[in-house]
Amino acid sequence: MKVFEIQGEFGFENLRLVERPDPTPGPGQVLVKMKGVSLNFRDILMVRGHYNPRQPLPLIPCSDGVGEIVAVGEGVDWVSTGDRVAGIFSQTWIGGPPSPEKLGGTLGGPLDGTLAELMVLDAQGVVKVPGHLSDAGASTLPCAAVTAWSALVEEGEVRSGDTVLVQGTGGVSIFALQFARLLGARVIATSSSHEKLEKVRDLGAWATINYQEDPQWGKTARKLTGGVGVDHIVEVGGAGTLEQSLRAVRTGGTVSVIGVLSGTSAKINIIPLLMQQIRLQGLLVGSREAFERMNRAISLHELRPVIDRVFAFDETPDAFGHMASGAHVGKVCISFN
Amino acid sequence: MKVFEIQGEFGFENLRLVERPDPTPGPGQVLVKMKGVSLNFRDILMVRGHYNPRQPLPLIPCSDGVGEIVAVGEGVDWVSTGDRVAGIFSQTWIGGPPSPEKLGGTLGGPLDGTLAELMVLDAQGVVKVPGHLSDAGASTLPCAAVTAWSALVEEGEVRSGDTVLVQGTGGVSIFALQFARLLGARVIATSSSHEKLEKVRDLGAWATINYQEDPQWGKTARKLTGGVGVDHIVEVGGAGTLEQSLRAVRTGGTVSVIGVLSGTSAKINIIPLLMQQIRLQGLLVGSREAFERMNRAISLHELRPVIDRVFAFDETPDAFGHMASGAHVGKVCISFN
Amino acid sequence: MKVFEIQGEFGFENLRLVERPDPTPGPGQVLVKMKGVSLNFRDILMVRGHYNPRQPLPLIPCSDGVGEIVAVGEGVDWVSTGDRVAGIFSQTWIGGPPSPEKLGGTLGGPLDGTLAELMVLDAQGVVKVPGHLSDAGASTLPCAAVTAWSALVEEGEVRSGDTVLVQGTGGVSIFALQFARLLGARVIATSSSHEKLEKVRDLGAWATINYQEDPQWGKTARKLTGGVGVDHIVEVGGAGTLEQSLRAVRTGGTVSVIGVLSGTSAKINIIPLLMQQIRLQGLLVGSREAFERMNRAISLHELRPVIDRVFAFDETPDAFGHMASGAHVGKVCISFN
Amino acid sequence: MKVFEIQGEFGFENLRLVERPDPTPGPGQVLVKMKGVSLNFRDILMVRGHYNPRQPLPLIPCSDGVGEIVAVGEGVDWVSTGDRVAGIFSQTWIGGPPSPEKLGGTLGGPLDGTLAELMVLDAQGVVKVPGHLSDAGASTLPCAAVTAWSALVEEGEVRSGDTVLVQGTGGVSIFALQFARLLGARVIATSSSHEKLEKVRDLGAWATINYQEDPQWGKTARKLTGGVGVDHIVEVGGAGTLEQSLRAVRTGGTVSVIGVLSGTSAKINIIPLLMQQIRLQGLLVGSREAFERMNRAISLHELRPVIDRVFAFDETPDAFGHMASGAHVGKVCISFN
Repeated sequence: MKVFEIQGEFGFENLRLVERPDPTPGPGQVLVKMKGVSLNFRDILMVRGHYNPRQPLPLIPCSDGVGEIVAVGEGVDWVSTGDRVAGIFSQTWIGGPPSPEKLGGTLGGPLDGTLAELMVLDAQGVVKVPGHLSDAGASTLPCAAVTAWSALVEEGEVRSGDTVLVQGTGGVSIFALQFARLLGARVIATSSSHEKLEKVRDLGAWATINYQEDPQWGKTARKLTGGVGVDHIVEVGGAGTLEQSLRAVRTGGTVSVIGVLSGTSAKINIIPLLMQQIRLQGLLVGSREAFERMNRAISLHELRPVIDRVFAFDETPDAFGHMASGAHVGKVCISFN
Repeated sequence: MKVFEIQGEFGFENLRLVERPDPTPGPGQVLVKMKGVSLNFRDILMVRGHYNPRQPLPLIPCSDGVGEIVAVGEGVDWVSTGDRVAGIFSQTWIGGPPSPEKLGGTLGGPLDGTLAELMVLDAQGVVKVPGHLSDAGASTLPCAAVTAWSALVEEGEVRSGDTVLVQGTGGVSIFALQFARLLGARVIATSSSHEKLEKVRDLGAWATINYQEDPQWGKTARKLTGGVGVDHIVEVGGAGTLEQSLRAVRTGGTVSVIGVLSGTSAKINIIPLLMQQIRLQGLLVGSREAFERMNRAISLHELRPVIDRVFAFDETPDAFGHMASGAHVGKVCISFN
Repeated sequence: MKVFEIQGEFGFENLRLVERPDPTPGPGQVLVKMKGVSLNFRDILMVRGHYNPRQPLPLIPCSDGVGEIVAVGEGVDWVSTGDRVAGIFSQTWIGGPPSPEKLGGTLGGPLDGTLAELMVLDAQGVVKVPGHLSDAGASTLPCAAVTAWSALVEEGEVRSGDTVLVQGTGGVSIFALQFARLLGARVIATSSSHEKLEKVRDLGAWATINYQEDPQWGKTARKLTGGVGVDHIVEVGGAGTLEQSLRAVRTGGTVSVIGVLSGTSAKINIIPLLMQQIRLQGLLVGSREAFERMNRAISLHELRPVIDRVFAFDETPDAFGHMASGAHVGKVCISFN
Repeated sequence: MKVFEIQGEFGFENLRLVERPDPTPGPGQVLVKMKGVSLNFRDILMVRGHYNPRQPLPLIPCSDGVGEIVAVGEGVDWVSTGDRVAGIFSQTWIGGPPSPEKLGGTLGGPLDGTLAELMVLDAQGVVKVPGHLSDAGASTLPCAAVTAWSALVEEGEVRSGDTVLVQGTGGVSIFALQFARLLGARVIATSSSHEKLEKVRDLGAWATINYQEDPQWGKTARKLTGGVGVDHIVEVGGAGTLEQSLRAVRTGGTVSVIGVLSGTSAKINIIPLLMQQIRLQGLLVGSREAFERMNRAISLHELRPVIDRVFAFDETPDAFGHMASGAHVGKVCISFN
């Protein structure tokens, strides 16, 4: 089988297309013929060596992908040959609250990831994907969609009538916008590009803010809610945005801390946390059961992920380059067909 | 009646004993003859002008106190003459989640506080205190005890078998230690003084750490839990302690952010928040209903607040000085008798 | 002012239009000029003496109504003259969990209700209503809508993708249908009338069952969910429906027990409760804070209550007769204009 | 190996000691040399054919047991040889909310149970037991203790200061008493025997009621709480006790429905459910993760299960007879040594 792997040293230039022997599923495992992959910001960090410099190489990168089960090992009854499935991000987080053991076995590092024609996965580590989705669409779910769902639904308990703020137009933010609308909430979206803001308005954003023109966007968001503040913020920026998020959020509100696009080390003023009883909730994707509950909602509403562009498998390096440029709205995908 | 008020400018030196006309209760109000007051760190900040420099003066400081109802206004049925009651910290937070309106009407600034021989309060703004407590003991409940209770029980859902970490030997931390034990949790306590650590061991701490000798106390706390991490941290230090708290807390654990004793502006690394799904929960005391639920537990277990020292009313400035010195373990109180 | 009151003995025939002196608001109270009233099944029971035979008479019946504040007493700042408000069902349940005290002060018995040209209410006991609603529309909210909202959102935590079952086409059931859709859930509705089922399909029901033709409707509902069962059932029938509800609900699902239209004493088999970890949750309307959260959602989505028919104030006895006939879909209203 | 199995037909008289071939663990499985077994009421029902008359025979009965891992299959890392473990009741419920799949694979029917010298179990289906416990003590945990823990902690959120009512002196009730005390709650216990009530007072019950002498014990329990009502009832009686439980429980309180000792079909009055917002929560033991959280608390407090009597393995039929007589307080155990 063909795979992309990071060879020798980290860096986009070391992402190589190589041949590996076809794997076979052991007891309790399934063999998946991959159809599609989608990229996350984590994959960029991983290939560049910024995510975990101690990660042993070679490594097949990427966490998200979808494929068809073409063989099953002994004792597998949870899924069967012919099922279209996605691997779950952390192969050991089935349900319940997180633990180091549950968060440790993630695809795309430390475990080999999805940029491979064939994958062997634990039967417990895959999920059937909604039937109405294309392969590209289904490939976007495991990280970005589950993260957004966990933030708003599993941890966040967003309710109809709430205001949700999403930052930028990356995968998680767009899913958060779409889910917030399914839940009956209204969405304020930020971006540095008027063109992108127009796109999110088309997707149903209730209000938009250009954070480049309005660096005090937190204050503006608060004003948009009549001074009350935003109920829930999906914080993907990290260091560069947290301060404004704390200005935007309402008393008793939640900031889901799920990304560090603009830096990892934030100076925060603790006073508003106290005085307004704010909750900062860190989040690392979510469990397989959260994934399954999300799929029910996606299927019922025939929700369609926003796909920026689909690259062919052998154009994978270009896909990484496109993702790294930040020009995308929604997900950057790779097809094996 | 006699009251202490901050006159003219902020500063301990401007805390003056003066005479004011006796107040009378209007409809729905009660008149309380004060018996005891207890000090919080907030009172120190308030008198020094560090809490809210725009607070109009004169102001009667202090949030915590207990007294006897000596008269009731028209239409009061919730309490009656002869009841021994404490005013709730925020006079408008009866129950449910917080809001700016609920958090706005706090005693000891912006509203006049408890350092007065007589107080008029809304009948809805007082709570009967447990009968087994002395006046000094009962006076310690409204801020410190309710904060600890809200952190561990109302927001934190600490369960039997959990590990709770408390910082130092101030009022909130000692109550958190006592409540954690009521809930069946074990407690790790930190302090810079061996003598104080001995006292908290006497109070039931399972393990103690001298943070001056062991600046990496977060790592040590984690080791004490077999590497798993602490379930719940009651963070009173703020800027100077948050980093170590994030090292101590377990995956999926909670840090209740309730104080800023060591600074208000913290540089935090966002990565562990994400990677370990940590929750930072800001807290500002709690509601009257939380207070009442806490009182049930205090009464059932005849829990006794730890009182460092009781000053006479006219020694109030000395009480402030003692509190500011940081030499105390538990609460610093003032008696009107 | 004119009011309807139950005079002498219970019974529709004793519902009389009489003159009472105009009331004036005391401290903390407001005077409301009533615009509209809506009927609940409770009102039927009350007038007939089935709800509480020990209720002293005369009594002004009805819990739901909307009006304009025309005067305020001393010390009222929560609302002002000109505000269009509804009284909350239990005047003392502001927020937090229920208690006997909070559930005791309900309008339409034991307290005088809304069938009066003028009402004096505690300022804390009213809520501003969404601006896009007609007076009739706004009058339907306090009992039926708040009950449905509390069942699905406050207690039920229904999420997008869930299946909700509603029984019949009364006020609570229709609101539950509408709210379930706002929350991204799908709805199965039951009725004995094909015509009514067509109406609920128009309102967005995903599937319908005629329970007269299909007495084993619980089994049918389960089949419709692929054998999994319904996530949440809004049980308004009581004795006559609970058995089928327990067949319809999924393992780990919830039955909100809110009505007894078909009887008060049910024989239930406890085994499925255990074996499927089912929750039966009794519900009595909800708090003012729940009402306010609901209003946010209603306003955002410009949700419009389903009104069956509006009667004039002096046709009130006919309105009761129409309600008692069970012919209605949605709410039966009364207008003061 | 020797096992007890139900042969041919149901009935105590058909419980036979037979020889079966020693099993060997496959991939992902462990071989456990059994040390102790404890009996539950379910086992009585199962042997008599009352639990599930369609259960195929022969069946090795009993759900609860403890043993030592003496061999592990390929790929097992969760536990190792030498570990002392208990099988979890439902072998497939690891964590998260229940589902038919999770509740289906229970030991002691449909799966073979613990009355065997050797058992092969999924490595995921066992839990290490607290070190301070004897084999008999550890054998009591999987059903009775996990049920009591799930009722009070996982589903019930009992807090310090609450009042918990337990019925009788069977295994679940005694564990509920012990856990309630760990959580800082007070306990009211009922029994028909003064001798047994004395025993539960020794175990820390705050108040006791002889339900034979006081058939209106629900009213009495309410009186004991000053008229407020009990916060949480662990309902093991079913049909014969539910009515009194509904009288005893407070507004907004919870009745955990976990047993049917006095009958399966209850006639309940729905009105108090509604009027007092009571929750009836069915419960079927709990997940492995709940078991592990419980073990933390048991270990921390060195809680010791109450053991009524330990029978030798070949006295198993006598153990069943003793259990069926209802004379026990706490658990009836069987030892393999």
